[in-house]
Amino acid sequence: MTSSTALLTDRYELTMLGAALRDGTAARPSVFELFSRRLSGGRRFGVVAGTGRLLSLLRDFRFGDDELRFLHDGGVVDAQTLKYLENYRFTGSVHGYREGELYFPGSPILTVEGTFADAVVLETLALSVLNHDSAVATAASRMSMAAGERPLAEMGSRRAAEMSAVAAARAAFIAGFGSTSNLEAGRQWGIPTMGTAAHSWTLLHDTEEDAFRAQIESLGTDTTLLVDTYDIRTGVETAIRVAGTGLGGVRLDSGDLPTVAAAVRTQLDALGATGTKITVTSDLDEYAIAALAASPVDFYGVGTSVVTGSGYPTAGMVYKLVARQDPSGSWVGVAKASTDKASKGGRKAAFRTLRDGVAVAETVVVSDGFEAISTGAEHPDSRSLQVMLVDGGEIDDAHEGVQGTASAREHHLRVREEMPVRALALSKSDPAIPTVFVDAE
Amino acid sequence: MTSSTALLTDRYELTMLGAALRDGTAARPSVFELFSRRLSGGRRFGVVAGTGRLLSLLRDFRFGDDELRFLHDGGVVDAQTLKYLENYRFTGSVHGYREGELYFPGSPILTVEGTFADAVVLETLALSVLNHDSAVATAASRMSMAAGERPLAEMGSRRAAEMSAVAAARAAFIAGFGSTSNLEAGRQWGIPTMGTAAHSWTLLHDTEEDAFRAQIESLGTDTTLLVDTYDIRTGVETAIRVAGTGLGGVRLDSGDLPTVAAAVRTQLDALGATGTKITVTSDLDEYAIAALAASPVDFYGVGTSVVTGSGYPTAGMVYKLVARQDPSGSWVGVAKASTDKASKGGRKAAFRTLRDGVAVAETVVVSDGFEAISTGAEHPDSRSLQVMLVDGGEIDDAHEGVQGTASAREHHLRVREEMPVRALALSKSDPAIPTVFVDAE
Repeated sequence: MTSSTALLTDRYELTMLGAALRDGTAARPSVFELFSRRLSGGRRFGVVAGTGRLLSLLRDFRFGDDELRFLHDGGVVDAQTLKYLENYRFTGSVHGYREGELYFPGSPILTVEGTFADAVVLETLALSVLNHDSAVATAASRMSMAAGERPLAEMGSRRAAEMSAVAAARAAFIAGFGSTSNLEAGRQWGIPTMGTAAHSWTLLHDTEEDAFRAQIESLGTDTTLLVDTYDIRTGVETAIRVAGTGLGGVRLDSGDLPTVAAAVRTQLDALGATGTKITVTSDLDEYAIAALAASPVDFYGVGTSVVTGSGYPTAGMVYKLVARQDPSGSWVGVAKASTDKASKGGRKAAFRTLRDGVAVAETVVVSDGFEAISTGAEHPDSRSLQVMLVDGGEIDDAHEGVQGTASAREHHLRVREEMPVRALALSKSDPAIPTVFVDAE
Repeated sequence: MTSSTALLTDRYELTMLGAALRDGTAARPSVFELFSRRLSGGRRFGVVAGTGRLLSLLRDFRFGDDELRFLHDGGVVDAQTLKYLENYRFTGSVHGYREGELYFPGSPILTVEGTFADAVVLETLALSVLNHDSAVATAASRMSMAAGERPLAEMGSRRAAEMSAVAAARAAFIAGFGSTSNLEAGRQWGIPTMGTAAHSWTLLHDTEEDAFRAQIESLGTDTTLLVDTYDIRTGVETAIRVAGTGLGGVRLDSGDLPTVAAAVRTQLDALGATGTKITVTSDLDEYAIAALAASPVDFYGVGTSVVTGSGYPTAGMVYKLVARQDPSGSWVGVAKASTDKASKGGRKAAFRTLRDGVAVAETVVVSDGFEAISTGAEHPDSRSLQVMLVDGGEIDDAHEGVQGTASAREHHLRVREEMPVRALALSKSDPAIPTVFVDAE
């Protein structure tokens, strides 16, 4: 195995490249745009996530001997194309939404500029990363808004492919979760990790009491005991008998949670364990979290629903050629005409228009060419949404790694505050703000 | 970055391990079982996939310096546990369903045996791989049955995280797809790759005709031209004018496919291109494929729906302790008691019971202990479903790599034939055959 990411690519990108090298169009200056035509599931906003991961993967997007041999042996491309790929390194530019930013239909999330050859080969990698991570972040942000001040832990690794699980933990963290069960996500992205024991821990022991005693011996009284392996009432009683009233918490992983949480709170208080927290972890999604708002719950653990985007596991973003030069060197805005998948040609600049600090529109200024597009600075009530991510092949490392992840989270939590109140509602609806396209000049 | 897979693990597995090393229960012989309580989405069968990938990942499940440092610095486990992990290598045994096999509620898909310490740490990795890959394979198998003799290509990489995309291509192939657009899946798993051109190819050129001409120049007349960038009727006419009536195929990626496919077939035939194939690729799932059965379509390309499990992106499998020894060395079957998540304790042997070659039941023989469980050989009308995958730490490499993938596909296509006709129906229902639990002895 190599660490190259270059084959995480659909074959047609390389066959197009081969044909373009042959007819000379490979060198045409081109602009590709990554955007979403709509918000999946009647969501009121989307959350951009994956940008930092994408930039790191782009560093490894090189065709080494192994990759070239596979392409040669499989007859995927011809000798001229192999030669081009051997030296390939993305030397174009990418600007786009900051990771953690909100997006709406038509928001120009990423704009990739270079020759056609430079940019066409990044389609699959860019979409894979952003579609997955943004789907998770969008669901996670809704959950974190529904949870209010109560902390959320992501614990869905087992319900996602092993590497997506790490990416999902990161996306959930950016969108407001406070911790993850996934150790690799802790190592790679600096996310706090959590977790104490499963049902197997209790079942391994001859009695529940033995299990609780051993856990406290190892992890201290401040630990969280899982009390629903046998009978919850007995479990809680045993937990407090063994740990004392200073027990950190109990975890409930089954049953009708509002009913069970209320009963357990009453029982804990009656036993004098008024400071013992209640964690719930059974099949939660944003709706279940909202329904628990009035219940005595202190901590939510969310699994399946967050890593699978709560019903919408992919964000539906696309990567389209929106402008390219003609043989005379003039820019031409281009777009597919088919009625059900139409897109908007031209280069775009995006602003969030605010009124009294509240977002009222996603303003997208469209230009056919490379004319200077007015910037946010000229609009006192607008916030410019795009930043430079890759400049002439140079990747801005501020967006990568642990630091990039932390700053994406801060950015998300900050810009989410700009949204009108209707953005908080969980029901299906139109986007919280409209996207307004404006012609440049 | 290291290639270790050991941190693709939920933190609680290591905290349980630490506590068990401390109280001595870590050494208790234990049996964990990976199974599904139900079939997601009212599906009539599930398809086991991921086994070959899991075995390869298990080879790299070792705690190296980097992993140990992270666990130490983060205070995840104590010194005794670090010492244990430093030498950890799975030395237990795993037997289970062959990859590509069908499964039903309660099927003992994997059985992991060893000490508690051996087996508890594999929970997340095993579930991540099998839940994802089986969800994709289950959806893919339904699509491939709906497509009948018409070939299917998987092209959903852009709608899945970059590494899951590779795993999804493999799972779809095992379940009957014939090819993938994903080059890495071609390299790693030997899956045929496909793909020619996107809309950007046409938009890059000054005219559609220029684009078609250049593609044919590069890829030959046998290529497939994408004809829906502007007007489909004009696109088809241009395609045949440029390529001649020997054009390999045209691809349709938008519109109402039954209507459009019929019109394009009529047009192609009228132009004399009676051998030109029609590929359709727009938002297909098993229902859309079934609805196109009477349409003149030759080839399906499926994206989003297959890589996201067509509405059910995770299989919902769990990994539970089902038996362990007590201090006297006697085996005890164990199970969680909670009513909504109850599971069945004991060690299990599984058989598909057939009548006249048609499956009638999933028979699961349950034993509390390690008594010999009667094998399939003793049941002339049954097929034994479990094979040894890891024997005392030795991994059977027949299930791994390109060869393991190909043989899983063969196995799937063979055992699918045993199913009763009702298994073919796409509507939500009970499983196609019941699971019957029988006590051993």
